[in-house]
Amino acid sequence: MASFQAQLEESADRVTVALDALLARADGPEARLASAMRYAALGPGKRIRPFLTLAAGRMLGADERGLLRAGCAIECIHAYSLIHDDLPAMDNDDVRRGRPTVHIAYDEATAILAGDALQSAAFEIMAGADTHPHPSVRLALVEGLAKASGARGMAGGQMIDMLSPTREGDDIGVLTRLHRMKTGALISFSVEAGAALAEASSDARHALEGYAHDLGLIYQIVDDLLDAEGLPSIAGKAVNKDARQGKTTFVTILGVDGARERARHLAAQAKEYLALFGSSANILKSCVDFVLERRS
Amino acid sequence: MASFQAQLEESADRVTVALDALLARADGPEARLASAMRYAALGPGKRIRPFLTLAAGRMLGADERGLLRAGCAIECIHAYSLIHDDLPAMDNDDVRRGRPTVHIAYDEATAILAGDALQSAAFEIMAGADTHPHPSVRLALVEGLAKASGARGMAGGQMIDMLSPTREGDDIGVLTRLHRMKTGALISFSVEAGAALAEASSDARHALEGYAHDLGLIYQIVDDLLDAEGLPSIAGKAVNKDARQGKTTFVTILGVDGARERARHLAAQAKEYLALFGSSANILKSCVDFVLERRS
Repeated sequence: MASFQAQLEESADRVTVALDALLARADGPEARLASAMRYAALGPGKRIRPFLTLAAGRMLGADERGLLRAGCAIECIHAYSLIHDDLPAMDNDDVRRGRPTVHIAYDEATAILAGDALQSAAFEIMAGADTHPHPSVRLALVEGLAKASGARGMAGGQMIDMLSPTREGDDIGVLTRLHRMKTGALISFSVEAGAALAEASSDARHALEGYAHDLGLIYQIVDDLLDAEGLPSIAGKAVNKDARQGKTTFVTILGVDGARERARHLAAQAKEYLALFGSSANILKSCVDFVLERRS
Repeated sequence: MASFQAQLEESADRVTVALDALLARADGPEARLASAMRYAALGPGKRIRPFLTLAAGRMLGADERGLLRAGCAIECIHAYSLIHDDLPAMDNDDVRRGRPTVHIAYDEATAILAGDALQSAAFEIMAGADTHPHPSVRLALVEGLAKASGARGMAGGQMIDMLSPTREGDDIGVLTRLHRMKTGALISFSVEAGAALAEASSDARHALEGYAHDLGLIYQIVDDLLDAEGLPSIAGKAVNKDARQGKTTFVTILGVDGARERARHLAAQAKEYLALFGSSANILKSCVDFVLERRS
């Protein structure tokens, strides 16, 4: 079996090629919008969310083409959220994955519109006939994607994060809930989409739900650890930002060692959820280690 | 029969009540996001798009509840587009319908997120089981809404509009195409959604497509006329902005009289498309006159 890293890269390449076909170039004056959308969605990235859709769906026997398409829809939502989160009125970041952010490479108006149009594209892609032959499955995916990205999911989490970056009274429960919404909801939905496309049993779905929940939290804890100790050349973005902004993170609450310990504990728990699937879940298990040990 | 104005107001009230139920209030730190979404979507407005969905759908025998729900989804897209268009990096408007715009009443980050979350809400509402019993009909509506709001529709039109407000070389064809995307696509889809929910014949759909196309253009020409000659207290927003910005409009190309003449011509043509439906289309005919003669 190819190494996890090789499988992740193979999946990322396939997603990029598929997105390249789905996000058409444009002629005429609107070409700038299409260009900014492609800059954001096709640029470097691990494509971890579509990878989860592909891995969970393959494990459960879903059709490859539909998995790839659903993964592309999810990646469009992720790409739009990064564009908007980087805006001056939000996190005000100039660099993302080692490149100028969209509002720097283009301008602020183009960045706002490119994010908006990527969100529309996500739903158009998910609703399309190639995602799954049964309309009811596609509809469930559209609804799930809307919930994961909306006010009770990603956008709601980002709102909480913007409101009070210092949050002195915050405890681990408040912080967990924030990240469960801000990043966890879309990561969970990525796994769920694979299961939905395979029309998996509710037992399988519940197990994957537990797995995805823990994986999302590990992802965020490691993000906080990387920010606290990382080098910009490794992380590909500004680091030590949280501390400079006096922001509450898993590291400020638990300390570096405590946060590492928490992530390791969650990793063990995430793998336990996969017992149901035996060795067919090895790739999802490897993904836990990858997220835990990632350096960018 | 009640006057057109009374019917429009009755429909607007029903849409506002339905939106109030669909856009839930929230507790906790994300309450601010829900509040901004509700401020934008439930504030004063003609709700002309949902009115078109209701009117076209009722004419063709669609179920009332589904029409109202689809109309609410469309109004969420419209509300999100107004929030983002008003942002400082876009049209930089402080007043909308006589009230502070969302980034003034709240702040810029909240406005960006409220627009984003309203777009997600639109798709969640449209995909929901209450829209239509057949999943394939709901899916077609989701796809249509995504196309109307995305890069080849509303967002693409706004991009063109932002790029070069003066556009010296513009002719009427370029301007028509811009507005066909920026405002026409969603107006057309509003009518189309009513026909789709009624599972109307393709003859009926084509007739309504022609009607909606012309209605959208009339709407924009009248917008340009109101901006050129309106008073802020009537229009409920900043006026004479186009001229101050040296912007190309139907009025700068055709003159006030020429633009009025063009709108009247389109109005006659829009009504001709409705001949197929006989007197059952009276309300859609009245809507043409309303859009033509509106003062705000």
